[in-house]
Amino acid sequence: MYAIPLGDDGAELRPLEPWHAEEFLAHLDRGREFINRHIPFGAKATDVDSAREVIQAYADKRAADRGSIHGIWLDGTLVGGVLFVSFDAATGCCEIGCWLEPAAAGRGLITRASRVLIDWAFDERGMHRVAWHAAAENTPSINVARRLGMTREGVLRQSYPWRDGRQDYEIWAVLAPEWRDARARAAHSDH
Amino acid sequence: MYAIPLGDDGAELRPLEPWHAEEFLAHLDRGREFINRHIPFGAKATDVDSAREVIQAYADKRAADRGSIHGIWLDGTLVGGVLFVSFDAATGCCEIGCWLEPAAAGRGLITRASRVLIDWAFDERGMHRVAWHAAAENTPSINVARRLGMTREGVLRQSYPWRDGRQDYEIWAVLAPEWRDARARAAHSDH
Amino acid sequence: MYAIPLGDDGAELRPLEPWHAEEFLAHLDRGREFINRHIPFGAKATDVDSAREVIQAYADKRAADRGSIHGIWLDGTLVGGVLFVSFDAATGCCEIGCWLEPAAAGRGLITRASRVLIDWAFDERGMHRVAWHAAAENTPSINVARRLGMTREGVLRQSYPWRDGRQDYEIWAVLAPEWRDARARAAHSDH
Amino acid sequence: MYAIPLGDDGAELRPLEPWHAEEFLAHLDRGREFINRHIPFGAKATDVDSAREVIQAYADKRAADRGSIHGIWLDGTLVGGVLFVSFDAATGCCEIGCWLEPAAAGRGLITRASRVLIDWAFDERGMHRVAWHAAAENTPSINVARRLGMTREGVLRQSYPWRDGRQDYEIWAVLAPEWRDARARAAHSDH
Amino acid sequence: MYAIPLGDDGAELRPLEPWHAEEFLAHLDRGREFINRHIPFGAKATDVDSAREVIQAYADKRAADRGSIHGIWLDGTLVGGVLFVSFDAATGCCEIGCWLEPAAAGRGLITRASRVLIDWAFDERGMHRVAWHAAAENTPSINVARRLGMTREGVLRQSYPWRDGRQDYEIWAVLAPEWRDARARAAHSDH
Amino acid sequence: MYAIPLGDDGAELRPLEPWHAEEFLAHLDRGREFINRHIPFGAKATDVDSAREVIQAYADKRAADRGSIHGIWLDGTLVGGVLFVSFDAATGCCEIGCWLEPAAAGRGLITRASRVLIDWAFDERGMHRVAWHAAAENTPSINVARRLGMTREGVLRQSYPWRDGRQDYEIWAVLAPEWRDARARAAHSDH
Repeated sequence: MYAIPLGDDGAELRPLEPWHAEEFLAHLDRGREFINRHIPFGAKATDVDSAREVIQAYADKRAADRGSIHGIWLDGTLVGGVLFVSFDAATGCCEIGCWLEPAAAGRGLITRASRVLIDWAFDERGMHRVAWHAAAENTPSINVARRLGMTREGVLRQSYPWRDGRQDYEIWAVLAPEWRDARARAAHSDH
Repeated sequence: MYAIPLGDDGAELRPLEPWHAEEFLAHLDRGREFINRHIPFGAKATDVDSAREVIQAYADKRAADRGSIHGIWLDGTLVGGVLFVSFDAATGCCEIGCWLEPAAAGRGLITRASRVLIDWAFDERGMHRVAWHAAAENTPSINVARRLGMTREGVLRQSYPWRDGRQDYEIWAVLAPEWRDARARAAHSDH
Repeated sequence: MYAIPLGDDGAELRPLEPWHAEEFLAHLDRGREFINRHIPFGAKATDVDSAREVIQAYADKRAADRGSIHGIWLDGTLVGGVLFVSFDAATGCCEIGCWLEPAAAGRGLITRASRVLIDWAFDERGMHRVAWHAAAENTPSINVARRLGMTREGVLRQSYPWRDGRQDYEIWAVLAPEWRDARARAAHSDH
Repeated sequence: MYAIPLGDDGAELRPLEPWHAEEFLAHLDRGREFINRHIPFGAKATDVDSAREVIQAYADKRAADRGSIHGIWLDGTLVGGVLFVSFDAATGCCEIGCWLEPAAAGRGLITRASRVLIDWAFDERGMHRVAWHAAAENTPSINVARRLGMTREGVLRQSYPWRDGRQDYEIWAVLAPEWRDARARAAHSDH
Repeated sequence: MYAIPLGDDGAELRPLEPWHAEEFLAHLDRGREFINRHIPFGAKATDVDSAREVIQAYADKRAADRGSIHGIWLDGTLVGGVLFVSFDAATGCCEIGCWLEPAAAGRGLITRASRVLIDWAFDERGMHRVAWHAAAENTPSINVARRLGMTREGVLRQSYPWRDGRQDYEIWAVLAPEWRDARARAAHSDH
Repeated sequence: MYAIPLGDDGAELRPLEPWHAEEFLAHLDRGREFINRHIPFGAKATDVDSAREVIQAYADKRAADRGSIHGIWLDGTLVGGVLFVSFDAATGCCEIGCWLEPAAAGRGLITRASRVLIDWAFDERGMHRVAWHAAAENTPSINVARRLGMTREGVLRQSYPWRDGRQDYEIWAVLAPEWRDARARAAHSDH
């Protein structure tokens, strides 16, 4: 029902809901190798039921105001998404994550979709801090954090088991006043 | 984050969520007498906690794909809403309901918002039947059902305790093919 | 432990409980084709565990005062039953349903058993309205509603998926004063 | 709905259910001092809500086939009851308990009601052992156990805190073959 | 993390926790025939998942202060254990049980471990009564009860289904003052 | 029952359990101002019930293998503790936290207790990474992290609301091989 245009190229952000399970699975199957190069997103979703469970976990988080998941549709095809991995209104802190199938990479979709989530977190929900965790080798993800004007706050060493070893995870974050300043400057420079 | 314009007069449909509890309570307090003339909607919401509980019940329904609640904002003020009282994807049947504070009455907001829900139910979710229950004396509600092209299917006699007595409830419904035909005719007559 | 004689022919009404699962399954297996001609009752009960689940759902409803299920035993054999599909003491409304295996049809067992439930709902529980939903083609079920003195209040068009298409469902109901009047008249005419 | 006559004096056994809360509370209030002389039955039921909770705990046990509670009505007034404190179909063991308000004492109501429960446990449910726990000073309760033909199997010393000290609890029990033999002898001696 | 030495022979008592599932299963597999001669302890634990479930049930009891399970490790190998089968702080009553693989029998491990539990129950938790249930033919278990200074309070006849028939269960118990007296005497006689 | 000596000064580490609620509350009441200078630990524990809830949350985490809480007793008085704020066996990562009343400060109790938890995490549970989060101004806490040989990995800016503003949180961590190396070096230098 709801959709937010992400630009002029037919990209839209919509709530990703359990009834999308088949569509979500087909999307994952197209992009599994690419998506799982650095992160295990969707790795448990191997059939319709398990795909529904992945989305259901976020539907439950949304009902509890602890997170939510949003798909990116390009010309009507689900190609990736962004999510509030966590959302804590009491402390004003949340974390955003993302995933994308390869056919949709290189268009800035994640950056655009993340801006929508961050605007909402700061403007509508009064959050103070939006974080972004990325495996240190996940250059595309780190580039999104940089493009969003986030600051690299540290590196959690060897914090996730991955293939034969363990991954370092970088923590990036942007604070509400930083976001508003950057937005104001961007609006000014548009003129 | 999400919003659907309902026309050119600044009216918008948005998900109504637990964090809206204060805004929802203020809205109910403005319209309580009017809203509860025929229906007990929101009668249990007398402070912020109980207002949140009313919305939370629908947040839980949404997570279970059994219903959902949507507010209507007019120039940024919550003035009423529409809801899937029930939603059963397995049988293809759902029921829509509504409420409105008096300041927003007479503009067709409910009809417009209901069309959004019905379009979604039939087009995106493949539902077959959308029902509308209204107290027999609730003329405004019954007029909405009529304007939506619904058929009056029966009257549940004395089915709800109300003030000193009990209310008859009318059941109206529209089926998917009826809705599509009416929409096609309307589109045609627009030319 | 508990049993209510339904007449002089050895028919009894008893609570149907989870420990009856094997007996319930055997009964369904005798009558499945007949029972499921118009309704899906018991269709999910295909082995002892799933048969128990069907009854357990009503045991849970009973504990919550939201419904209950009762078997009809004929000469010690479970042959069918009646149930409060829903029961809402707060609004005074409930719905009764039934099922029967073919060997026990034609004796008025359902009508007799339903009278017990309706008497209890009106006399002991102070309910105001007892409804009966039946597929429009389910003539035996509609005849029971008629024999119980119910009024046909409407038809929910195409409200249940069934075989290749969808079924219309008739809603019948009787109100407490109607039931008491009819009972008084029947008692009078017995003299 | 269900009721089992306990004799010719208007005494009946019926399921005691959460909706009986007000009646149960009034009954307890009449007999509290007497009932709680040896046991804490119903001590937590001090208003309608807490009275309902006491019964609800057994409604939940019944749904789980782990116990149940049954009231004794004398000329339409709830005067006491019997209960399966525990019921374990897997091991074939259960425990019966009782309570009574003073106005109904001395009539053998508990013995009569207990016979109904024991018959059901052995005959319908195939249980093997019915136990009865009684505080050692609770002579009326121990007399019931004796009248039911139970054997005193032991004394759990100081097993329940009571007033200033602790109570010894006697364990009595009857086994299925013992019960059947005694019943056969009694039937024989009736001729 | 925690461990209590049970003597000078390398025996230790430690909390047995769900993450011990593999070790627990291996231990059961070594002793299954011996352990299950009289009792069904661990009979449901036939693979790692079911072994974890057995321990998890006690982890949940511990969180609710309703029981707990503790392993006995001999030179680093899990060889048996003792458990609070039930623990009721409100009434001051609890029951202790045990199991052991054959290689560790004959060393008094169970008696030593039980003393630790009983000391804790009486001294730290203020319990009043510790019970011990044993199948009447389970001589080793009854000998432990006797060595612990417990009193035989009765026999629950045929209270547990076992192989072709049913087992009598003896109930033994020790009260707080008895335990303290015996301990004081033992301490005295050590000098 | 279980206790681990932390040195020669009468300090012990024990599981902190819901039945310690009164003792925990008395301890918090002695140290509240000091404990809450930088962190909100125990702020919700204002009476026995709420004190029990704080501990119960960790009892539930322990049952789920997601964390645990341990008290430090000094000469028999609860004076503080350490806890696994989180514990994720699947990824091998956990976080340790601490609190202390002022009378027990300056003795290295937290460092000693933390070593016990870290040893257990790495040696018995095979974890790979133990983290420590501390408000940037909480010098005593940061000194513990340093003494434990942890590395400062970053600063989460303004991540927790505190008094009038928000606190930066430092993240420190030690990895399994680092811990083992440091322990080996320390053992070597002891000779």
